[in-house]
Amino acid sequence: MRWIVLKKHIDYDGSQISSLWGYMAADLQEDSIIAFRGSCDVQIRHMIDLEDRKEGDSIYSTDMLHFVIEHFDSTDLKLIYARQRLFTAMVAETLLQRGIKTSRVGDDLFVQGKKLSISIASTSAVSQKIHFGMNVEHAVYGCLSDQGVPEQDMFSLMEEISSRYVEEIHDIEKDLRKSRPLGVM
Amino acid sequence: MRWIVLKKHIDYDGSQISSLWGYMAADLQEDSIIAFRGSCDVQIRHMIDLEDRKEGDSIYSTDMLHFVIEHFDSTDLKLIYARQRLFTAMVAETLLQRGIKTSRVGDDLFVQGKKLSISIASTSAVSQKIHFGMNVEHAVYGCLSDQGVPEQDMFSLMEEISSRYVEEIHDIEKDLRKSRPLGVM
Amino acid sequence: MRWIVLKKHIDYDGSQISSLWGYMAADLQEDSIIAFRGSCDVQIRHMIDLEDRKEGDSIYSTDMLHFVIEHFDSTDLKLIYARQRLFTAMVAETLLQRGIKTSRVGDDLFVQGKKLSISIASTSAVSQKIHFGMNVEHAVYGCLSDQGVPEQDMFSLMEEISSRYVEEIHDIEKDLRKSRPLGVM
Amino acid sequence: MRWIVLKKHIDYDGSQISSLWGYMAADLQEDSIIAFRGSCDVQIRHMIDLEDRKEGDSIYSTDMLHFVIEHFDSTDLKLIYARQRLFTAMVAETLLQRGIKTSRVGDDLFVQGKKLSISIASTSAVSQKIHFGMNVEHAVYGCLSDQGVPEQDMFSLMEEISSRYVEEIHDIEKDLRKSRPLGVM
Amino acid sequence: MRWIVLKKHIDYDGSQISSLWGYMAADLQEDSIIAFRGSCDVQIRHMIDLEDRKEGDSIYSTDMLHFVIEHFDSTDLKLIYARQRLFTAMVAETLLQRGIKTSRVGDDLFVQGKKLSISIASTSAVSQKIHFGMNVEHAVYGCLSDQGVPEQDMFSLMEEISSRYVEEIHDIEKDLRKSRPLGVM
Amino acid sequence: MRWIVLKKHIDYDGSQISSLWGYMAADLQEDSIIAFRGSCDVQIRHMIDLEDRKEGDSIYSTDMLHFVIEHFDSTDLKLIYARQRLFTAMVAETLLQRGIKTSRVGDDLFVQGKKLSISIASTSAVSQKIHFGMNVEHAVYGCLSDQGVPEQDMFSLMEEISSRYVEEIHDIEKDLRKSRPLGVM
Repeated sequence: MRWIVLKKHIDYDGSQISSLWGYMAADLQEDSIIAFRGSCDVQIRHMIDLEDRKEGDSIYSTDMLHFVIEHFDSTDLKLIYARQRLFTAMVAETLLQRGIKTSRVGDDLFVQGKKLSISIASTSAVSQKIHFGMNVEHAVYGCLSDQGVPEQDMFSLMEEISSRYVEEIHDIEKDLRKSRPLGVM
Repeated sequence: MRWIVLKKHIDYDGSQISSLWGYMAADLQEDSIIAFRGSCDVQIRHMIDLEDRKEGDSIYSTDMLHFVIEHFDSTDLKLIYARQRLFTAMVAETLLQRGIKTSRVGDDLFVQGKKLSISIASTSAVSQKIHFGMNVEHAVYGCLSDQGVPEQDMFSLMEEISSRYVEEIHDIEKDLRKSRPLGVM
Repeated sequence: MRWIVLKKHIDYDGSQISSLWGYMAADLQEDSIIAFRGSCDVQIRHMIDLEDRKEGDSIYSTDMLHFVIEHFDSTDLKLIYARQRLFTAMVAETLLQRGIKTSRVGDDLFVQGKKLSISIASTSAVSQKIHFGMNVEHAVYGCLSDQGVPEQDMFSLMEEISSRYVEEIHDIEKDLRKSRPLGVM
Repeated sequence: MRWIVLKKHIDYDGSQISSLWGYMAADLQEDSIIAFRGSCDVQIRHMIDLEDRKEGDSIYSTDMLHFVIEHFDSTDLKLIYARQRLFTAMVAETLLQRGIKTSRVGDDLFVQGKKLSISIASTSAVSQKIHFGMNVEHAVYGCLSDQGVPEQDMFSLMEEISSRYVEEIHDIEKDLRKSRPLGVM
Repeated sequence: MRWIVLKKHIDYDGSQISSLWGYMAADLQEDSIIAFRGSCDVQIRHMIDLEDRKEGDSIYSTDMLHFVIEHFDSTDLKLIYARQRLFTAMVAETLLQRGIKTSRVGDDLFVQGKKLSISIASTSAVSQKIHFGMNVEHAVYGCLSDQGVPEQDMFSLMEEISSRYVEEIHDIEKDLRKSRPLGVM
Repeated sequence: MRWIVLKKHIDYDGSQISSLWGYMAADLQEDSIIAFRGSCDVQIRHMIDLEDRKEGDSIYSTDMLHFVIEHFDSTDLKLIYARQRLFTAMVAETLLQRGIKTSRVGDDLFVQGKKLSISIASTSAVSQKIHFGMNVEHAVYGCLSDQGVPEQDMFSLMEEISSRYVEEIHDIEKDLRKSRPLGVM
């Protein structure tokens, strides 16, 4: 698995959650996490969460850190959702190390009672993906600027979160290769 | 999925990680998390982690909070390991809410640089399981007493952690039932 | 898993077999069986069975009891087809208890040599579904009215069949949580 | 898939539920259903159902028709249990055609309120199996003799049930090869 | 599994890689390999390999032997790719027996340093497929004519390759039905 | 995935086919192919192939090149058997490049009509493995020495075969990360 933080801004419109976007955008032929910064405005046809569609929710933010994760090793929905929750908890851990205390509710992070992030996970016939976005600036919702993350740290924050996820996955892959099967009563 | 906190002490000897222990011990016919308190002394024949076997590690503690999780919905190693990491992160979140700051490295929690917990996960042909144990008292390693968790809170801590895991799993099961499949580039 | 019998008539046009219809129509975030009454006229673009498409079969009935089953726990075709056959056999058992003797051939029920029902099963990347429809009235094919099921019993028949399927699935989930793995020769 | 009815009596002691028994006993290298007649006395070490073990149930009958099914196409517990229920329903359908009315509760058949059959299903790492046994004679429980099945029909009854199951599986395999994937809302 | 060699020419435009083409074209309700002869001109909307799309590669040949394989027993990408490589190796083995020495690089065959074949594999929610095409005539690339395969042998070559693949799959299915599970250290 | 050729001789007694042998013997926590040279004398309790057990076949050779492959990414029997066939074909390709023409029948290689190799594949609850052994010297069966492979080339032959398999698997993993899902008729 590989991580990349893109230098150029990309506006997240939901097309990036499509399977194989990493291959088209960055020639990646590995499982990957790609981070980038940009606005967020998900088009209806790219909305994965039917709750958003149903309620006509607009998912809009002018400035976010985005993380797009793609795994080709499984198409099991349970697995990608467990990974999504784990990723969300890891983001919280990383922020805590920088002194920002958040609370996690499922795949959402809250800071001082305000929603800081959005996330979705799903699968196609060939891969499974997660999108996770965190506000950099926001008038209403929680955002990293308000929490004192300086502008010049945004890039390194994306690097830290991305590399940490890859490390976690590698660590799991190593651990499961030294465990015996369970006994049975 | 159901959670139970056992009132009686049980000494964890590794047999509890066997598939179907929950059915034999508590008549459970659901996915479950069973918490209990007791010593920890894993017998060599119940050691799942070959690293421990190889290095002749003794896994010993006189007083621990134990969590034994069993899922019958999959026998995929990747899934049970993702769930194990997520559970470990959740324990850290719960402790943090009580003012105890830990750091997570894979499936281990550390407190003030000292190892607080042990964990293993694996699968049989019929179910997948996690064991997670956390020292209550320990002369050398990290432990909850040293962190100021009063004796009378141990039971409620087990309840909080167990119920939270069940809630997380239920939340996942609900979320995956409103997500469309991914588009493809 | 949950069952619902809808009070309002719904005309089955094949769109109801789509994944996540239950969430859109009834906010369900569980595996489910939704029963309702209405005509049946499957549009070509919703035809799952290519045999029907190929032969230009019209699937038409003015009045049917419909059952739409959705499971998110697997996308295995073999499983949803085994469940479809089991469901069909259960409908036959239920009718027999009301004195109506049918014969089952795969996923079809016949009464006095006439086809009483239609059914299809398939999977998407996120869920697996079954549609099963049974004629209430029909000039040519078998139907419940001709078998003496009174108009006022149609609703309770849908309730009985739906609840029975849920019970069967729950019973299976319980049984598989007390079975040891097989030995090997 | 192939079916065989053995001419010689075999006493079912539970070893026949082991994976690969069909290969050792009859050189079968296909999915199979093997039927035979004989007593039933399951040894504790071959008991798959922990409920029986726990309650010290003896599973004993002097004369039974046995059906041992093995599939190598999956090790999914949900699938083998769905197949077990379907098989049980099929046995009931077959008996009904001979005028014997039973009622099915999960994997049990009852005749005039008395238990007629026993069954278990499980999986190993290589195959999944079902055992289903039905009393020919029994002083206490339901049995085929009491229902008027003549001695000379026992063999043909085994043939009919076995061949019907193979036909059902083949029919499923054919049906799933003409179904389009589901659309999505 | 069944093999068919079509007598009529079919021009491969990529639509034949779609799931269920075998059912629509030849009423097949089994896993299958269908061989035929014809030109090759893959339309952009049927291009499975994004590398071709990206690079605007035209996949064009006036005369090829085509093999279209469909399996419904799994939707695992790893499996269909292993099968694709195995098939490619088998084609090389068959050509070698006719005195034509090729070298295989992944899913490509080369003859005297020139590319002889094209191939792709993928999965949908219901089946997995392989397309493999080999030039009969070609001005630039390698082709069978240049290797001395006479015109009248093309049909029998398709028969030989197709039947051999079916035999290989059947042999695998038999072998896995006599193997015990692995022991564990 | 990693490959290793062991310098020391190891006598293959069948214990090496056990899951996790690579971890115990060489601290490997990756999918792996481990090659070594030594005699072959499989103990009855390590025999995976029931045909050998049944026929009391001794699997004996004084000097062989052994390849032990372990994958933790799946426990699907069909996949490990497809990989076994592919590996066998690759060995044949490698030998051919050295001028040794063999014929492959399933998982066996023959040279001048004499059996050159043995192989088995299976799965446990945690991993899937292949053993492939090829005679260096043999009085009765085919062997590499008789085919003119000089003693000093045995090690490099093991390196070539092992590295090629790893390369093939990596190539597959890359290819499946640029393929779109199939369309459907």
